[in-house]
Amino acid sequence: MWHETYLRTVLEPDYAYASEHLLPHLFDALSAHTLMLSAQHVPHAGEATALLRQLRTEPFPSYDPRIEDVFFTLDRRVAALNPDAAGAMRTALSRNDLDMTIYRLSARRRLLRAAQRILTLRDTLLHLAGREVETVMVAYTHHQPAQPITFAHYLGGMENVLARDATRMLSALERVSLSPMGAVALGGTSFPIDRDLTARLLAFDRPIENTYDAVSASDWQVELASVITIASTTLSRFVHDLLHWASRNLISLEDGLVQGSSVMPQKRNPVALEHARTKFSKAIGVTQGIVLSAHNVPFGDINDPGPDMQPTLHAMWQDFRDGVELLTASLGAPHLNREKWLREARQGESAVTELADTITRAEGCGFRDAHARVQALLGTLHREGRTLASAGVRDLAAAGIHLSEGDLDRALDPAAFVAGRMTYGGPAPEVMRRSLTHAEDRLAADWDAHQRLTRRFDDARLHLQGALP
Amino acid sequence: MWHETYLRTVLEPDYAYASEHLLPHLFDALSAHTLMLSAQHVPHAGEATALLRQLRTEPFPSYDPRIEDVFFTLDRRVAALNPDAAGAMRTALSRNDLDMTIYRLSARRRLLRAAQRILTLRDTLLHLAGREVETVMVAYTHHQPAQPITFAHYLGGMENVLARDATRMLSALERVSLSPMGAVALGGTSFPIDRDLTARLLAFDRPIENTYDAVSASDWQVELASVITIASTTLSRFVHDLLHWASRNLISLEDGLVQGSSVMPQKRNPVALEHARTKFSKAIGVTQGIVLSAHNVPFGDINDPGPDMQPTLHAMWQDFRDGVELLTASLGAPHLNREKWLREARQGESAVTELADTITRAEGCGFRDAHARVQALLGTLHREGRTLASAGVRDLAAAGIHLSEGDLDRALDPAAFVAGRMTYGGPAPEVMRRSLTHAEDRLAADWDAHQRLTRRFDDARLHLQGALP
Amino acid sequence: MWHETYLRTVLEPDYAYASEHLLPHLFDALSAHTLMLSAQHVPHAGEATALLRQLRTEPFPSYDPRIEDVFFTLDRRVAALNPDAAGAMRTALSRNDLDMTIYRLSARRRLLRAAQRILTLRDTLLHLAGREVETVMVAYTHHQPAQPITFAHYLGGMENVLARDATRMLSALERVSLSPMGAVALGGTSFPIDRDLTARLLAFDRPIENTYDAVSASDWQVELASVITIASTTLSRFVHDLLHWASRNLISLEDGLVQGSSVMPQKRNPVALEHARTKFSKAIGVTQGIVLSAHNVPFGDINDPGPDMQPTLHAMWQDFRDGVELLTASLGAPHLNREKWLREARQGESAVTELADTITRAEGCGFRDAHARVQALLGTLHREGRTLASAGVRDLAAAGIHLSEGDLDRALDPAAFVAGRMTYGGPAPEVMRRSLTHAEDRLAADWDAHQRLTRRFDDARLHLQGALP
Amino acid sequence: MWHETYLRTVLEPDYAYASEHLLPHLFDALSAHTLMLSAQHVPHAGEATALLRQLRTEPFPSYDPRIEDVFFTLDRRVAALNPDAAGAMRTALSRNDLDMTIYRLSARRRLLRAAQRILTLRDTLLHLAGREVETVMVAYTHHQPAQPITFAHYLGGMENVLARDATRMLSALERVSLSPMGAVALGGTSFPIDRDLTARLLAFDRPIENTYDAVSASDWQVELASVITIASTTLSRFVHDLLHWASRNLISLEDGLVQGSSVMPQKRNPVALEHARTKFSKAIGVTQGIVLSAHNVPFGDINDPGPDMQPTLHAMWQDFRDGVELLTASLGAPHLNREKWLREARQGESAVTELADTITRAEGCGFRDAHARVQALLGTLHREGRTLASAGVRDLAAAGIHLSEGDLDRALDPAAFVAGRMTYGGPAPEVMRRSLTHAEDRLAADWDAHQRLTRRFDDARLHLQGALP
Repeated sequence: MWHETYLRTVLEPDYAYASEHLLPHLFDALSAHTLMLSAQHVPHAGEATALLRQLRTEPFPSYDPRIEDVFFTLDRRVAALNPDAAGAMRTALSRNDLDMTIYRLSARRRLLRAAQRILTLRDTLLHLAGREVETVMVAYTHHQPAQPITFAHYLGGMENVLARDATRMLSALERVSLSPMGAVALGGTSFPIDRDLTARLLAFDRPIENTYDAVSASDWQVELASVITIASTTLSRFVHDLLHWASRNLISLEDGLVQGSSVMPQKRNPVALEHARTKFSKAIGVTQGIVLSAHNVPFGDINDPGPDMQPTLHAMWQDFRDGVELLTASLGAPHLNREKWLREARQGESAVTELADTITRAEGCGFRDAHARVQALLGTLHREGRTLASAGVRDLAAAGIHLSEGDLDRALDPAAFVAGRMTYGGPAPEVMRRSLTHAEDRLAADWDAHQRLTRRFDDARLHLQGALP
Repeated sequence: MWHETYLRTVLEPDYAYASEHLLPHLFDALSAHTLMLSAQHVPHAGEATALLRQLRTEPFPSYDPRIEDVFFTLDRRVAALNPDAAGAMRTALSRNDLDMTIYRLSARRRLLRAAQRILTLRDTLLHLAGREVETVMVAYTHHQPAQPITFAHYLGGMENVLARDATRMLSALERVSLSPMGAVALGGTSFPIDRDLTARLLAFDRPIENTYDAVSASDWQVELASVITIASTTLSRFVHDLLHWASRNLISLEDGLVQGSSVMPQKRNPVALEHARTKFSKAIGVTQGIVLSAHNVPFGDINDPGPDMQPTLHAMWQDFRDGVELLTASLGAPHLNREKWLREARQGESAVTELADTITRAEGCGFRDAHARVQALLGTLHREGRTLASAGVRDLAAAGIHLSEGDLDRALDPAAFVAGRMTYGGPAPEVMRRSLTHAEDRLAADWDAHQRLTRRFDDARLHLQGALP
Repeated sequence: MWHETYLRTVLEPDYAYASEHLLPHLFDALSAHTLMLSAQHVPHAGEATALLRQLRTEPFPSYDPRIEDVFFTLDRRVAALNPDAAGAMRTALSRNDLDMTIYRLSARRRLLRAAQRILTLRDTLLHLAGREVETVMVAYTHHQPAQPITFAHYLGGMENVLARDATRMLSALERVSLSPMGAVALGGTSFPIDRDLTARLLAFDRPIENTYDAVSASDWQVELASVITIASTTLSRFVHDLLHWASRNLISLEDGLVQGSSVMPQKRNPVALEHARTKFSKAIGVTQGIVLSAHNVPFGDINDPGPDMQPTLHAMWQDFRDGVELLTASLGAPHLNREKWLREARQGESAVTELADTITRAEGCGFRDAHARVQALLGTLHREGRTLASAGVRDLAAAGIHLSEGDLDRALDPAAFVAGRMTYGGPAPEVMRRSLTHAEDRLAADWDAHQRLTRRFDDARLHLQGALP
Repeated sequence: MWHETYLRTVLEPDYAYASEHLLPHLFDALSAHTLMLSAQHVPHAGEATALLRQLRTEPFPSYDPRIEDVFFTLDRRVAALNPDAAGAMRTALSRNDLDMTIYRLSARRRLLRAAQRILTLRDTLLHLAGREVETVMVAYTHHQPAQPITFAHYLGGMENVLARDATRMLSALERVSLSPMGAVALGGTSFPIDRDLTARLLAFDRPIENTYDAVSASDWQVELASVITIASTTLSRFVHDLLHWASRNLISLEDGLVQGSSVMPQKRNPVALEHARTKFSKAIGVTQGIVLSAHNVPFGDINDPGPDMQPTLHAMWQDFRDGVELLTASLGAPHLNREKWLREARQGESAVTELADTITRAEGCGFRDAHARVQALLGTLHREGRTLASAGVRDLAAAGIHLSEGDLDRALDPAAFVAGRMTYGGPAPEVMRRSLTHAEDRLAADWDAHQRLTRRFDDARLHLQGALP
């Protein structure tokens, strides 16, 4: 009956994907539908609910090329056991609203799982940051040493971005967790149904009002693609820095995360991080397929953001989760070369901003002037083949800078530099500890929200299965 | 001093872009900074504020290849007039936090302008929908006639998606409208500053806590790219349908929006819509540059999501706004061929779902059975070269369907079909009018929020200019 | 030994992918390597070749978490059976050059398979075009009826673009089918090896000269992504038109390629085409992952365009091939509504350009003037609610156009319009038949080239397996 | 007459773009057309040619909102001066074929300019490589030190990839430099015209045969986008490495290419390279707009890959050229820290592969065995807190490795390592010099081809202007 090509390229893989990933959602959606029909006094709807509860515990039939998809497979099965129940179940129902419901039920689970990985990574970052509040490192700007900060400050900055990613994820959920049920083909039905009840049974926030919107919209999928793209770009930047530090031996991964070489016996490659980078590149790439599937197509029920996009979304979640897990694992027990970082901070000229600040305060001149004098001093030293570390008060005096030995030392000491950065959100350990406390509180609140949502979705399923009142 | 290539490809175009688009934000940010310094009792900071108020009313110097950028141009100008003021202004300030502040000030204006275009389009859609609540059209699924709805129902569905886009835009604003000021280079400063005050003066919600995050993060730009991508895909679908209808002469644009042909005298091409489609394609394309600029680069202060991305963001806003305006204009006074739409609904078989529903109710059988019987009836008719419109009660009886003439007529009448779709969010005029009222209320609330934000940002500027207390 | 996360997200899936898709290429590459070593008189290399020939006929070991990948699995197996052979095999060999070789061997097969699908589609198009040389249809520009052409002319245009895609594919092959072998880790080796021989044995055109380039370059993968993107955009346009015609019932697919609806008994959805559209959207999306994996990463041996990109390339080939096959199947036996197409051409005003041409010739005036007069005529008719079909010589005369009844009829007859388009490459049946002959000759040459390459690669493998001298 | 929105968002910017960038091509195309008409004895065509020659030397009218575009502006101007010439010029001409011709004429110039930048960069790379044939550096794989090579070897590898980019560019030209003229609206014309002659006059390789293809195809634009994407990814990798070396002070740019900091007096940021990175990110991003404009749109004459895509292509060429120029400038006179590179090669363990090779040769064991013994030796040393540099023959003997002091020294000397890599395409200076000679010959051939094409296009224009016979 079906063209061989159509079977091979569409129906079979669709069935395989749906059987593996979507069946629980299919049973949930149909059960909510028949429960609602019962409440509306549709005959035999209760029998359908009972049958669905039974069938979800049995093995699902494997692929039969004569039957279109998992829905019709189940429909036939129900009809074989109880034709009246099957007739009831099909009332005020279309694959259009049913499929969109299933995809949304699936997506909100995936979104919660992705968010969970981000929360776990934030846990790891804050834990590590808590330990490294006094670990001085040189922050780079424009690929050049810039100023001393602490590793905690860098990690805290990254955690703050990821907190925004978590917010975006939970915000996207508000537009995902809405019920298309009752839209039927696209225009609702002439049967009296209760869309609010179905939505409540599925733990959706509410029905999507306009029934045409309910079966047609793709914005929520492109938004899912977007939150993954946004987080992936940020994480690609983090990976960049970790690999940069690994290449300079400032950080190294534990044994189970490095690989050697078949030809170079000395190699310990930080491959877990490299693979994390690729996972994020792939995740971003995959999101483009989601964008394209919603580009220049009709606004209406079509396959593009429908069944065809589900394996693509699956690949996106998979790549993203893998990437975050590899990154989290890499930060589990990294070896930090704190001495090398501090040495670099001492020998370089990254603390020189504080020298200008000190001059500004000591001499009451403007910063602009102090900056110019320090720049001139560095010019002189470099022309003599010297660095700032070798400079004494006489060199400074020659440049018109009048500081005591102690002031000079303090100005150029990276730990003192950091300790003086007491600005709100700055790297001074005391300030940093306060920032970490804020961050931990916010993270705890995010975990709470996450668990509340997870429990709500779990409870809804238990209720549909008949396990909860 | 500068390499000719660097001047030509970087410094000159940067200056040109900044002069044209960023100066008011530069003055705002510096004024807020000096006002804060004054409050912290930094000497001469008040003079700097006064000078900035004066200089913003004067023509800004044109490009001088010896000076790096607009900041140093202004810095020199201030120093020439009052060296102490210039020295004060440079205290606890870096181009790093200053630039990021300016980009955020600019972005939030652009975001509000884009949102305003979406709100205007929603106005247009609801106005049109209000007029077309009884205009029957055939909705298509999978590129085939499916069921009768009304034009208002389609338009209402589109408006509902766009309402979500507006929500996303205002939600993105919460992560844009944050203050980097006080982060200085990346680690704050050893001067006592008041980041909250600067943030308040600039009408930012609050400072970005972590100072490294403040100068490094690109997530807010990728989020802006994302909200535009999401909205653009939806709008590309809308344009698809409008052009499809235009190609079938169901809708035609007013004269000022069509173009003719140099060779085909009969042509009236709906080019405004075609250009809108391209604008959205271009906007989505441009967003990829924003994603790529944040991909696999260091997390730290770099040019990629900094100055280099501003003209790209500009192009994105421009393409998007142009697209929405073209679309809004096209919907201002379109000619609708309502008769053709109704004729198509009558002659086709799109109302046939209701026939199955009617059988279900009349015979008390399940919908599954009714669907099968109607499918068999259609098969017979098509084999005889007939359509459903030609079928009478005897044809139905032969297919085992027992309906009266009146029932049959009612079942197949598209207007009756629509009137019976009373489901929440369905196309029945009575229901639709209720939906439109909801939509209008939500839109009014969005306009309010938009105006509150606009006024807040405007007032902040007036205050910085010295025009408000 | 390995971190659980690393095993689960990297090593296991890599092994699974390599076992399923890359083993024959692994054996080919190693066999060519040991054959070359033998020719260079490396002891025991001949034994290694013999062992490889034997092992490739045996089942490959399933995954063992203690062993890194398929290479080390095979290496251990060889060493267990003959340590000397294993020692020889590892001489002047690294996984770096070996992997890149395997990926190129795999890619050239995939590329040939993709090209084969394009050639088959071109076969189908030319066959269909040959039948439809006189089938008049209205070509649209800017979504409006423009001029009559024939369906053959449209199909011929599409075939011509696809011929360029085939050229691009074979051109890309020239940069894929090059040998990295002998580059070892990246800098070659201090053993005397013969890179030309290895290349020849693997039917590569030649070695990639620079050994660093050999293990580092990603340009050939991004080029593969590009040829797929280019072809997919063109095919998405073709699918657009087919679906547009299907939506207007001008074309319909055979039964095995349409799906019905669970709620609308009348539906016959041209889903094969819709899925083809999604396949192309997904293919283009996937290519972005390939671009991103080569973006802002080191130029050197890394995992990004290495093992991590292989499943992505696989997905790209799969989606693309599926799309082309669905499209080809849809064109196998479509039903064309030729009468409706002709009717539309007659009733519309699409032949009106010829009216202007006729006036130009008849009156010796310029085309510019004739165009203006026809435009005025149409304006008058439309204001009177009439169309051009209703116009007679008196209407024309009133517009200052002096043609005989016969001239007018000829000018407005779509078949005559087409027959008169004798321009090189135009739709006139006589000209079109000549174009189709050109196209068939070119396609035959492409099939020849394709078969030559296929045979060459097959023969090389047979030789490496020991089946050919 | 035009809607204000349409004027502002479409017509005005189109006119501005066309006036600035497309006029010479417009005159060329029209001149070739009228010359061809003259040869076909169309009356007044010769006068049109003469008028076009005159008008191209005069200032082009500025924008007049009553006239659609530059074509109609010129058409009116010609008609005002000589109505007969205007009538002739419009014969067998449409904006459809004319515009596509102009876009192709423009694109082939841009493509040649982009190729010229690549050739210049290759010149720079080979020049630098010629100087650095003996400059030892450590090549990294997976972000870890791997093996010593020379800087020339790295640069040579990069040049080899860019040579493939140049090939791709010239190959794309074969599909760009084809003539759409004579396709008129889409189906040719009923006038006898000579498409070959027009093509020849415009120095196109030949007409695009199928006239529908001629006005519809977008594949050549997506191919242009692709060649830029391919080259940009490779160049982004090169920039990555240069910035990595700059961050470690191995390479530094000349003064005119670095920028300082407003707050950190010591900074010398390699910003030219950073901006180059962004230019490539932006170029790749822009290409997505080109892909999207050809996605899911009709195959026919539409605005998407037509006028609307021209500014996007312009932005792509601009960003790409700017990026290549910044990169080329950065390599003009970089300071290399050769001593640091050599020191790193000596102190690290990157030459250790040669130790295993030496053992293989000295002991006649297999490489597999030697690799294992060296790995064990490194393990012992590292556990003792030592590096390979500190190891003597006794340490080796303890690990079962029996080498003389001299053999050991030679094995671990990076310069000796490199000198021994005599493999074809390897880094040994003698081999490298041969590779550079090959590369220079190939580059010279590419310059020749480039100049031949440039001259051919220039001569065609001179002829059309009447300056050549």
